[in-house]
Amino acid sequence: MSLNIYNSLTRTKEAFKPIHEGWVGMYVCGPTVYSDVHIGNIRTFVNFDVVYRYLLAKGYKVRYVRNITDVGHLEGDLDIGGEDKISKKARLEKLEPMEIVQRYSNGFQHKMEMFNTLPPSIEPRATQHIIEQIEMVQEILDNGYAYEVNGSVYFDTKKFSEAHNVYGKLSGRKIEELLSETRDDLKKQDEKRNPTDFAIWIKADPTHLMRWPSPWSIGFPGWHLECSVMSTKYLGQTFDIHGGGTDLKFPHHENEIAQNMGACGCAPAKIWMHANMLLMNGRKMSKSDGNHITPDQLFTGDSPHISKAYTPMILRFFMLQAHYRSTLDLTDQALQAAEKGYKRLMEAYENVNQLSTNQRRVETDLKKEITEGIAAVWEEMDDDFNAPKTLARLFELATRINALKDGHLPMADVDQETVGMLQEVFKKFVEEVFGLRQEDAAGAADDTLDRVMQLVIDIRAQARANKDWPTSDLIRDQLAEAHIQLKDGKEGTSWSKS
Amino acid sequence: MSLNIYNSLTRTKEAFKPIHEGWVGMYVCGPTVYSDVHIGNIRTFVNFDVVYRYLLAKGYKVRYVRNITDVGHLEGDLDIGGEDKISKKARLEKLEPMEIVQRYSNGFQHKMEMFNTLPPSIEPRATQHIIEQIEMVQEILDNGYAYEVNGSVYFDTKKFSEAHNVYGKLSGRKIEELLSETRDDLKKQDEKRNPTDFAIWIKADPTHLMRWPSPWSIGFPGWHLECSVMSTKYLGQTFDIHGGGTDLKFPHHENEIAQNMGACGCAPAKIWMHANMLLMNGRKMSKSDGNHITPDQLFTGDSPHISKAYTPMILRFFMLQAHYRSTLDLTDQALQAAEKGYKRLMEAYENVNQLSTNQRRVETDLKKEITEGIAAVWEEMDDDFNAPKTLARLFELATRINALKDGHLPMADVDQETVGMLQEVFKKFVEEVFGLRQEDAAGAADDTLDRVMQLVIDIRAQARANKDWPTSDLIRDQLAEAHIQLKDGKEGTSWSKS
Repeated sequence: MSLNIYNSLTRTKEAFKPIHEGWVGMYVCGPTVYSDVHIGNIRTFVNFDVVYRYLLAKGYKVRYVRNITDVGHLEGDLDIGGEDKISKKARLEKLEPMEIVQRYSNGFQHKMEMFNTLPPSIEPRATQHIIEQIEMVQEILDNGYAYEVNGSVYFDTKKFSEAHNVYGKLSGRKIEELLSETRDDLKKQDEKRNPTDFAIWIKADPTHLMRWPSPWSIGFPGWHLECSVMSTKYLGQTFDIHGGGTDLKFPHHENEIAQNMGACGCAPAKIWMHANMLLMNGRKMSKSDGNHITPDQLFTGDSPHISKAYTPMILRFFMLQAHYRSTLDLTDQALQAAEKGYKRLMEAYENVNQLSTNQRRVETDLKKEITEGIAAVWEEMDDDFNAPKTLARLFELATRINALKDGHLPMADVDQETVGMLQEVFKKFVEEVFGLRQEDAAGAADDTLDRVMQLVIDIRAQARANKDWPTSDLIRDQLAEAHIQLKDGKEGTSWSKS
Repeated sequence: MSLNIYNSLTRTKEAFKPIHEGWVGMYVCGPTVYSDVHIGNIRTFVNFDVVYRYLLAKGYKVRYVRNITDVGHLEGDLDIGGEDKISKKARLEKLEPMEIVQRYSNGFQHKMEMFNTLPPSIEPRATQHIIEQIEMVQEILDNGYAYEVNGSVYFDTKKFSEAHNVYGKLSGRKIEELLSETRDDLKKQDEKRNPTDFAIWIKADPTHLMRWPSPWSIGFPGWHLECSVMSTKYLGQTFDIHGGGTDLKFPHHENEIAQNMGACGCAPAKIWMHANMLLMNGRKMSKSDGNHITPDQLFTGDSPHISKAYTPMILRFFMLQAHYRSTLDLTDQALQAAEKGYKRLMEAYENVNQLSTNQRRVETDLKKEITEGIAAVWEEMDDDFNAPKTLARLFELATRINALKDGHLPMADVDQETVGMLQEVFKKFVEEVFGLRQEDAAGAADDTLDRVMQLVIDIRAQARANKDWPTSDLIRDQLAEAHIQLKDGKEGTSWSKS
C-alpha cells in the first residue's frame, strides 16, 4: 500500500517517496505564544499529529519539528540609554516578554496534552536561533537578493523573481499582480524598493523590548525568517514535508520558500501540506462579532454556542470527522454527533478485545469481508490521510464486531487470525493513529472513575428496585459530597461533575 | 512578622529586605536536560518551590527564574567540511542534541507537574542566550579578567582575586590553597595560566555537535556562564536571591560570582541559598553501587528499596519534613511515616472546613491558644523557611481541630473569627505554601475517585453485614474489570489500582 499526499505546491496528489529511504523530515509552523491558543490552531496541530502518527504507523522514522514563535512585538518604555539607576530599579517591575512567553507556552503545552497530541521530536524556539537567522540574512545579502536600508534588511522580491520563477507559485499569485495590487501600501513602506518586499531584519525602535545585535543594527529578525532557518537546520536544506494552516500559505510560506531559495538556491520542502480552517456555525470565527469559542469554554460548556460540555477526546474525534483539506464547521449539533460517534467507536474497541475463538482456521465470506475491510482502512488513510473515510471503514468493522459479540453473527465464521487482525487494526488506528483514548465523563484520561460510577449507578438502580432506601440515600449523600450529579434520563442514568 | 533567611555567603541568618520594596527577584539553577531528572534534584526544586510560594504568600511580587541547561556536550561525527552529499543525506539519521533536549525537558516538566511545583515566571534556556553569553565574555575580556588561547577564553582567577577579594568566599576556600591543591591537573590544562582558571568560551573540536560562531572561534560557552547571563538579564545586575543545590556551591556558584563581578564589578545576588542533599538509607545515592531509586520506581513501588508505591504528594510531604539546609534520608520507613503524616494533615484540612459556629465572640483560653498557634505557624516559616517546624505547628492545631469536630473540645469555646482564622491558615499553608493537594490512592490529583471508592467500600461492608451476596458479588466483579483491588485489613478496607 503506498501513501499519496496532496502537494499544495503542485496542486496534485503525489506518491510519497521520502528523500532518504525510511526517514521522513517534517516541519510544521507552530504557535505564537503571546496569547492563548485558538481552537482553530488546535485543529491544525491535531491534523498534523495524525499525519505524524500515521507516518510512524507505516514504519517511517520521522523527525517532526514544530516551532514556537517567541519573538514577539511587545513594546515597553525600555531605557536603552544604559543601566542608570532608574532603569535598574525598574527591571523587575517592567513587562518582560519572556514572562509572557512562559505563561502561554505552558498553556499551549497543557492543551496539546489534553488533546493527546504527541510532542514533536524538536520544538525549536525562534529566540534559540537568532545567530542562525543573522547568518541567513547575510547569505541572502551575499547572494544579492536583499538590501539594507537604515539598519533594516529587506528581501528583494522583484530581483528574486527575475532569477527564480517561483515567487507566488505556492499561493497561486503572480508577482506582477502582487506588485501592482499592493502599491497603495507604499506610503508606509518607504524603505522598500517594491511593495511585495518584506523585512528579514528589522532595526528596533527604542520601545521594542526584544532586540539583539547584528551587523546592520540592534534589532530583531523578520517573522518569516525563523521557519526558513529552523526547518533546514534540523531537517537539511531540502526536506520532505512542510505543513501549516492554510492561512499561512501567503505571505508566510511563500516568503519562506523565497528566503531558502535566496540563501542556498534550493527549495526547502518537496511537499507542502495545508490544513483548512475551522468555522463555527458556518462562518469564520471572530471575537469581535461574538462567533467565537475557546477550548476552555468547550470543556466547561460555558458558552451560548453550545448546550453542554465536551471533553477533549470528543473534540479530537470531531476534528477527525473532516478531511484536513476541508473546512470543518463547529456546531453544537455536530459536537453531539461526535460524542455519539466517539462513544460508539470506543465501545467497539472494547468489544473487539473481548472476542475470542478456538477456531484454528476457517474460510468464510465473513472472514473475507473482514479481511477486505481491514485493507480498506489502510487504503483510505493512504489516500492523503483521509481520516473521515478511514473512520467510516472502522465503523463498518465495528458493526461486525458488535454483531459477533452479541451473537447476531456466528463466531464460528471467524478464526483466530481474523480476530487478531481485527484487534490489531483497532489498536493501530483508534489508539496509535487517531490518538483517541478512553476518558470518563469528567474528561479524565482514564476510565476507572467511569467504571466505578457505573457500578454505583447499578447498585442504586437495584436498591431502588428493592425499596432499599438507606442504600439509596447513602449514595445520594456521598455523591453530593464528591460533587457528582446523577441525571436520570430516557437512556438510563448519566453522571457529571459540578 | 519578618522573614529571616540564612545567607550562605555570610553564613548568618539575615533579615530579608528586598532591593526594591515589594518585589523579589529569585534565580535558581535548573536541570540539565540530557538525562532524566534525579529525585535529589527534585528535592531541590520542591524546596525552592516552597520558598517561592512562601514569598508569594507574604505578598511579594516575585519574578522567579529557573534555567534549563540545554547546551550539552554530545559528540558526533558531524562533518564540518560543508554540506556535501553524504552529510546532507545523513542529517536526519544523525544524533540531534535538540531531540534529546526535547525528550528530557518534556519529562522534567511532567515530573514538576506531578510534584505540584509552580512553573517559574521565566524558564530561560542556555541556547536562547548565546549572543548575551558572547557579550559577557567580551566584557570580561575588556576588563582584563580573561584571556584567549587558541580560540578558547579562560577566566583568570588569579588576576581576579588580586582585584576582588571574593573568590572562594561562598564555598569557604582560599584561592591560594585552591591554586596549590589543583596543580596536579595542570597537565590536562596546558592552555590555562592557573589551575583554578575556567573556560568561559570553548573552541569546539570537530566532533562537538552544538556550536556557534564567536569572535574567538566556532565554539560554545562554558557551563558556568549561562547562569551569570540569564540571572542578570531578567533580574538586573544585582538581585535578591540566588538558589541551587549545595553541590553547586563550588565551583559553579563561585565562578558565577567571579564572572558577574568580572563583567560589571558588582555581585549578582545579595542572598545565596543552598538546598542540602537527599540521601538514601543513610548514604549518598549512587547508581553504581545500587543505592539508587528513580521517581518512577517510587510511584510504582518497583524497587528493592521500598515495600510499596508512594504517590507524588506523599513524596512532597516527605521532603517538607526536613529543613532545606539539612540532609534528608530516604528510607521505606520514613516514607511510610510521611504517608501517615500526609493523610493526617489532609484529614485535619477537611475537618477544619466542616467546623462552623454561631458564636459571635468569645474570650476563652482555647481561643487564645489557637490564635497563638496560628501566629507560631507563620513565625516558624519566617525563620529561614523552616517547613518541618511549621508542619509541627499545623499538627498542634490539627489536634484541636479534630477534638472540636469530635466533641472532645467544646465548640462553645471558639467563635466565628477563630474558626475563620483556622480555615485560612490551613488553606494558606497546606495548599498555597506547601503545595499539597488531595489525591486518590492511584495518585490522581483529585479525590473524586477516592470518595466514590469509599462509597463503594461502605456499600460492600453493609451488603456483607446483611448477607446480601448478589450486591457483594457485583462489586467484586465490576471492580476487577476496572482493575481495582480491595484489601481488607485491621484498619478497614483500602483500595489500589493494578
